[in-house]
Amino acid sequence: MTRTVYLNGDYLPETEAKVSIFDRGFIMADAVYEVTSVIDSKLVDFAGHMARLERSLGELGIAKPLTTDEWLAVHRALIEKNEIADGAVYLQVTRGNGGDRDFVYPPSDTAPTVVAYTWQKPLLVDNPDAQRGWTVISLPDIRWHRRDIKTVQLLYPSMAKMEAKAKGADDAWLVEDGTVTEGTSNNVYIVKNGRIITRELSKDILHGITRAAVLRFAAEAQMEVEERPFTIAEAQAADEAFATSASSFVMPVVSIDGTPVGTGKPGPVARRLREIYVEESRKAAI
Amino acid sequence: MTRTVYLNGDYLPETEAKVSIFDRGFIMADAVYEVTSVIDSKLVDFAGHMARLERSLGELGIAKPLTTDEWLAVHRALIEKNEIADGAVYLQVTRGNGGDRDFVYPPSDTAPTVVAYTWQKPLLVDNPDAQRGWTVISLPDIRWHRRDIKTVQLLYPSMAKMEAKAKGADDAWLVEDGTVTEGTSNNVYIVKNGRIITRELSKDILHGITRAAVLRFAAEAQMEVEERPFTIAEAQAADEAFATSASSFVMPVVSIDGTPVGTGKPGPVARRLREIYVEESRKAAI
Repeated sequence: MTRTVYLNGDYLPETEAKVSIFDRGFIMADAVYEVTSVIDSKLVDFAGHMARLERSLGELGIAKPLTTDEWLAVHRALIEKNEIADGAVYLQVTRGNGGDRDFVYPPSDTAPTVVAYTWQKPLLVDNPDAQRGWTVISLPDIRWHRRDIKTVQLLYPSMAKMEAKAKGADDAWLVEDGTVTEGTSNNVYIVKNGRIITRELSKDILHGITRAAVLRFAAEAQMEVEERPFTIAEAQAADEAFATSASSFVMPVVSIDGTPVGTGKPGPVARRLREIYVEESRKAAI
Repeated sequence: MTRTVYLNGDYLPETEAKVSIFDRGFIMADAVYEVTSVIDSKLVDFAGHMARLERSLGELGIAKPLTTDEWLAVHRALIEKNEIADGAVYLQVTRGNGGDRDFVYPPSDTAPTVVAYTWQKPLLVDNPDAQRGWTVISLPDIRWHRRDIKTVQLLYPSMAKMEAKAKGADDAWLVEDGTVTEGTSNNVYIVKNGRIITRELSKDILHGITRAAVLRFAAEAQMEVEERPFTIAEAQAADEAFATSASSFVMPVVSIDGTPVGTGKPGPVARRLREIYVEESRKAAI
């Protein structure tokens, strides 16, 4: 089956979906995105993703091209047309085609470019990675300093992922000024003496939609949460470690730079939070 | 006249030149570029730009899609087809279309995407900006830390340019850890007591092709050059300031954060270096 994708109001076969070589998303990474997970053909945390999209657009001064209801209609149409049971919808908005390349933004009435497409991920919930847990290495965080804006400037996260894979690991934890910021595309956590520790929100990290949900569920389950930076050494000495993202949910981390964390197996807090997250997401999905 | 552009081996009308929405240049800023100036329909510093392109590709592990002779043929064909007298050729290479979005690179035999196009700039040499000089403001440098790789991650330089324009200035000088790194798309210099001071090459700045040429010409003209970082305060107290880039050549800077530099007019060193650069480039262009 050829996938149907969305491009600027049209539903097209994926092979026909193309953007101008002058699009600012292509020549200047002047674009933001969201990835919303789909469980049982329903959208997980849709409102959160759309709120963050609007925030990203606002920070960059890109016009909001569709209303929240229209975004929902596009997401649902793509899920239906592509018969997605478990997977995700990817959505990207660029500042559009401003004609000749210029560091100065094009006129504010330039139409943003809107792209959306789906992917299937049958093992989204029963991800075998979550059974064994991820091994990670640490790498310097050399990304730009507005990581709270979800832009497509993903070259370094991609390079870091490749370096992790080359070293036999699943992911990289990025370190800046001695403390851990994030994984390559996830927020990160440690657990010590029953307390969950994760970096506080700032421009240093993405304001994870899954992070917000997991911290809410943790509080509801009477778990203690402390928001502050931590070092790799502290993480290696923790009882557990884990990561969260829209596509991996809650992912146990069992080793950091070759040092096992806790027992070296997925810990009870991460496993419990994953269960709660899946249960609650399934209930609340729309 | 509709412009003719180059895309993956084909010469096309610009309106037909489109890339897949799955291209990694579009979804991950996984792409590098070069801009080569054209004077009298000839290419300025072409060998330097192609050497840097190859270096950028090598640093990112993107296959070199064309030989240097082939690049030259593409550049010359575009200049001819579009009747460019003075202007530039823009060249971008991405890691290509890897299918579904993935932080892991696609297989190494994935064909890179190659885009090239021209623009006209009749006042390239007799740029009125060079007569009056630029005013600049300082802004924090929050870009990623591999600025020696010429990637399309240009969102912050674009944001900084917009902030400069909003404040009535021509450009922004970026400051990191107390010293100036670069302008938004140019290397920067000050002149004090006849000595030219510019930041040394490192991962902090782009290794400007025009920078290398200008420093060579300065040495040939017996000017003293000191390669080290400098502060905004030192620049404001300098006798002159200027910037260099492939498209602006040597551009005097006459004011920084509202403080006039030297006389507040383009200085003799910058003016002389611009003359030499234009003369020598015209002679050496191919």
